[in-house]
Amino acid sequence: MIMMESAAAPLAPDWHVAQWFNSSSPLDLESLRGKVVALHAFQMLCPGCVMNSLPQAQRIAENFDPGDLAVIGIHTVFEHNEVMTTQALAVFIREFRLTFPVGVDLPGAGPIPKTMAAYGMQGTPTLVLIDHRGRLHKHTFGTEDDIRVGADIGLLLAERERSDAQ
Amino acid sequence: MIMMESAAAPLAPDWHVAQWFNSSSPLDLESLRGKVVALHAFQMLCPGCVMNSLPQAQRIAENFDPGDLAVIGIHTVFEHNEVMTTQALAVFIREFRLTFPVGVDLPGAGPIPKTMAAYGMQGTPTLVLIDHRGRLHKHTFGTEDDIRVGADIGLLLAERERSDAQ
Amino acid sequence: MIMMESAAAPLAPDWHVAQWFNSSSPLDLESLRGKVVALHAFQMLCPGCVMNSLPQAQRIAENFDPGDLAVIGIHTVFEHNEVMTTQALAVFIREFRLTFPVGVDLPGAGPIPKTMAAYGMQGTPTLVLIDHRGRLHKHTFGTEDDIRVGADIGLLLAERERSDAQ
Amino acid sequence: MIMMESAAAPLAPDWHVAQWFNSSSPLDLESLRGKVVALHAFQMLCPGCVMNSLPQAQRIAENFDPGDLAVIGIHTVFEHNEVMTTQALAVFIREFRLTFPVGVDLPGAGPIPKTMAAYGMQGTPTLVLIDHRGRLHKHTFGTEDDIRVGADIGLLLAERERSDAQ
Repeated sequence: MIMMESAAAPLAPDWHVAQWFNSSSPLDLESLRGKVVALHAFQMLCPGCVMNSLPQAQRIAENFDPGDLAVIGIHTVFEHNEVMTTQALAVFIREFRLTFPVGVDLPGAGPIPKTMAAYGMQGTPTLVLIDHRGRLHKHTFGTEDDIRVGADIGLLLAERERSDAQ
Repeated sequence: MIMMESAAAPLAPDWHVAQWFNSSSPLDLESLRGKVVALHAFQMLCPGCVMNSLPQAQRIAENFDPGDLAVIGIHTVFEHNEVMTTQALAVFIREFRLTFPVGVDLPGAGPIPKTMAAYGMQGTPTLVLIDHRGRLHKHTFGTEDDIRVGADIGLLLAERERSDAQ
Repeated sequence: MIMMESAAAPLAPDWHVAQWFNSSSPLDLESLRGKVVALHAFQMLCPGCVMNSLPQAQRIAENFDPGDLAVIGIHTVFEHNEVMTTQALAVFIREFRLTFPVGVDLPGAGPIPKTMAAYGMQGTPTLVLIDHRGRLHKHTFGTEDDIRVGADIGLLLAERERSDAQ
Repeated sequence: MIMMESAAAPLAPDWHVAQWFNSSSPLDLESLRGKVVALHAFQMLCPGCVMNSLPQAQRIAENFDPGDLAVIGIHTVFEHNEVMTTQALAVFIREFRLTFPVGVDLPGAGPIPKTMAAYGMQGTPTLVLIDHRGRLHKHTFGTEDDIRVGADIGLLLAERERSDAQ
């Protein structure tokens, strides 16, 4: 498999979020410990995100038990910040009927916002899978086939179940 | 056919555009006389526009000779004006690689901009077909199948060819 | 346009059919005079036919008035005749819910059946458009975009309407 | 998850195959022990199989290491046997470019062939997932989303990896 072995996988860095949508309280990796996390980094005016990656994120959110797996969107704006504002994102999330929590990445010193920098993301869309112990596994720039992403999710869900059973 | 007969078809009203993209000079129906016009009214954060109608507009632009048929987009914002700004539209057009001219509908007295009001559009996406003499034919709210829209375009192209031959 | 001008277009040759499905009586071009005809030549085990061309034929059949346009399938088997039999075709048509008339092309002296030879078809799928006077226009090997095929149908429907009006 | 726990899962019954395609020797569950098996039961003239399920089977075959997971097709003909013959299947497999092994289900006493009966399948398409120890897990009539099937494959691959590690 293309994913790192659990023992070798590093801890996922914390994310840095200025504001949350679709969540009544702030979310961090600590509070999601015990769940597999599918982190979708996107920009609201990135065509690959809008046409491919966000629909995939929504399919993931609808196909798995939120008690097992959390889908988290992060709006990692690194260009055209003047139009991809928090106010614009609020409209986008409502109009495109995204149901999973979406956090606004905190601006950094340069053009790259803080979460994007912490994860070393190359651009958008990026998908990151994090296991139930907070370890970083898959990290993909672009959109992979559902069958491939599904299998990687299944591997992490299996690890989580095994850990529950011990 | 569902389209009005030419003799009966009313003249299409002028559009009211504050600013053009993908065109070095302002466009009006007068200047397009002699071509069939496919007018796509959209909002940049309307999912039906982004996922269905604008890709169809782009397919039309790529499948027909621009000397025969002009595809014209009109950004008819009637909600969330504070985020669907001209500046945001400029980014959207570039990122989504729209190649046809797009005009920004001029604000009206109320929430409905002037072109949208002049055509009596019900919402976005709306497709309007105008013949080479400036007469209004098809006027559809929502997105129709390509085979249906293609046939309506073919009917108007045939009328235009016949008129050339006379 | 890519289609031949009416004046220049040759008469479409007759087709040669051993047996009809979805039609209570034999159909020939003579009996369809006055309608535009979309002739889809296919083989039931040709992937491009099954996945692309026959669904397009079905969309055409569902989007136009059968009084204006007739969709006609022709099963032009030129390989694997031992398994693409008339009996197998009967099952295929029922299972895939094709609703338009389908004729079985008559075997010729060599491997190419008679209709396929008469039209000079290069393979399957092939789409032929014939105007209301029986003249052959579009003749395409492979599957074109719906918007393009729709426009060519619209051109022929317009010619037909004009002719009715005279 | 919707799959049975390993401990509770029954052994998958043997399949009964008259002839194999895309395999130089007969395949049985015994010989595949140690791999996850995705068993796709289909009929070559079943639209849901041709349009949805077989393309999914092919995507699975292309996305996973054949050393980890074996995709096996079974042609379970229970109707129209006179046209869905072994000879016709040979043409179908070649034309549709299926690359995974396909076995012809052995006729039974009645209309239901032996493998189909042994697994209690309700119709085609049916997908069965079998773990590396030969235990039967997922058993689905119809076609599920890739993200869901991928996750179920991932769970079984994880079980297999864990077992290797012990």
